[in-house]
Amino acid sequence: MTGPFHIPLGYGGEFDAISAALHRWGPLATGVGDDCAIFDVPPGERLVLSVDNAVENVHFRRAWVTPEEIGYRSAMAAISDLAAMAALPLGITIALTLPESWRADFLRLCDGVGDAARSTGARIVGGDLSRGSELSLGISAIGHVAAPLSRRGARAGDALWVTGKLGGPLLAVRAWERGGTPAAELRARFARPEARIEEARWLVAHGATAGLDISDGVASEASHIAAAGGVRVVLDLDRLPLLANASADDAARSGEEYELLVAAPASLDASAFESAFRLPLTRIGSIEPAAPGASPVEARVQGERVELPRGHDHFPRP
Amino acid sequence: MTGPFHIPLGYGGEFDAISAALHRWGPLATGVGDDCAIFDVPPGERLVLSVDNAVENVHFRRAWVTPEEIGYRSAMAAISDLAAMAALPLGITIALTLPESWRADFLRLCDGVGDAARSTGARIVGGDLSRGSELSLGISAIGHVAAPLSRRGARAGDALWVTGKLGGPLLAVRAWERGGTPAAELRARFARPEARIEEARWLVAHGATAGLDISDGVASEASHIAAAGGVRVVLDLDRLPLLANASADDAARSGEEYELLVAAPASLDASAFESAFRLPLTRIGSIEPAAPGASPVEARVQGERVELPRGHDHFPRP
Repeated sequence: MTGPFHIPLGYGGEFDAISAALHRWGPLATGVGDDCAIFDVPPGERLVLSVDNAVENVHFRRAWVTPEEIGYRSAMAAISDLAAMAALPLGITIALTLPESWRADFLRLCDGVGDAARSTGARIVGGDLSRGSELSLGISAIGHVAAPLSRRGARAGDALWVTGKLGGPLLAVRAWERGGTPAAELRARFARPEARIEEARWLVAHGATAGLDISDGVASEASHIAAAGGVRVVLDLDRLPLLANASADDAARSGEEYELLVAAPASLDASAFESAFRLPLTRIGSIEPAAPGASPVEARVQGERVELPRGHDHFPRP
Repeated sequence: MTGPFHIPLGYGGEFDAISAALHRWGPLATGVGDDCAIFDVPPGERLVLSVDNAVENVHFRRAWVTPEEIGYRSAMAAISDLAAMAALPLGITIALTLPESWRADFLRLCDGVGDAARSTGARIVGGDLSRGSELSLGISAIGHVAAPLSRRGARAGDALWVTGKLGGPLLAVRAWERGGTPAAELRARFARPEARIEEARWLVAHGATAGLDISDGVASEASHIAAAGGVRVVLDLDRLPLLANASADDAARSGEEYELLVAAPASLDASAFESAFRLPLTRIGSIEPAAPGASPVEARVQGERVELPRGHDHFPRP
């Protein structure tokens, strides 16, 4: 196949579909018509690349969100991986498998992808459109950063910080699964997540030593910081910032938040962050030395050890 | 989701599956365990990125090829887009949607991807494994090159050259579609294509002005060179290098060849190329000035104009 915006001949309508998408995206789409997209990386910067696949009935259901929202959140999930490294987005590519039953919604999916790209400064640099029996969006995001924020590097003595308020995606999915309608602020956290790009760069500039974005729930992500850094993470469940009527347990297990979880000095000026971004920054635990036999992540409530909310409560698979 | 080698929790077996794949790939897989893969681009070089999606029953059928071959050809198709730009591969990422019915073949798919990466010098730098009802492999390939070979740039007076012998994939698919078994050399062209990486660099070093890889058939690709370069391409059908019992029409329409089609000086030393790569390099036409009212691609047989074999004979969609 040929590269960016591959147009398979012999499948009527692809050409028109891709032309329509390119027209819709306008100057947001670049590099069209060659086998690869081309990037120049600023001197001294490193290039980072993420890959994400969003599949109908695995990552979302058609009844829950609009086609625009599906495109938007799929792209934003990939872009959030750039934010997790404190990188600035350069571009995204889209490998779209489009069943006949989604054909009429093609441009709405593209609009959502375009929104996510536009709002984060990414260009749309390539794509591949295939038929198939199941809607899936494979999105790669490319960015650059001089010093990538990694999961490694947390130091005993650091505090554990999280951006935003947690629990929205889990509560939204729970409402849908019960046949209900989630409250708007919960729904928005599932349907319109935001990659915390500038927030991550602020955190690095203010001493963050390790970090990631919350895909699988805070409790689960904390274990990555512990394992990668060779440290122990103490998570104060009663400090978790809760959205709406989420419980601490909900907040610890809610995935696809795309908020940032970082290890950074306890002296971090959270109010400066909150002023800059109009987003909470909450100290939710501490980094301790690893101890033989001790669990790498320990949950506490009012200083007393409790069971760690385990398992990512991704939405039940149909 | 998190990046390279995303391991969705809550779906039993993913972790084991990905661990097994990483073990199988060994040092070929790198950058595991952070949100993004990180690349350093050599000074003065540009980064290029391709994206390709291979979907069961659209791009291949299970009965035709082995799981290893599916993994191999999917990865090689993406890597071939790097070759088309005369770039050297750095790495590939894999977004794999794996139905339950393919679960037992997961490692065989991974082995094929690994073979393609190993044989082209690419590392496996990231992945995302999802459930789904349909097997698809979304592969992105990343490479670097100082001066990308583009589709633009063909000059009137250049000759049109092609590597290899054409027709194999079309004849193989035709045999399968008829319920038969293709001859080994035809089957190999479909199942085990090769990205012409060093060949492309040789061609650039020897004056190639424009080029691409043959995804959709020579006749179709020639039109891209004509359109991008603002020139007219004359294609001598009787000069097409034929594999086995392929006709010139087969050779002109056979897609997924992944051979190179380039505009380059007529004085190119094809025998030096053939000695270096043990691969034919054949002059199959010429680049002419665009002429108002003239077709951008003109087919000839023994100098007489004939109808252009139109339409990419991708295999019939089920």
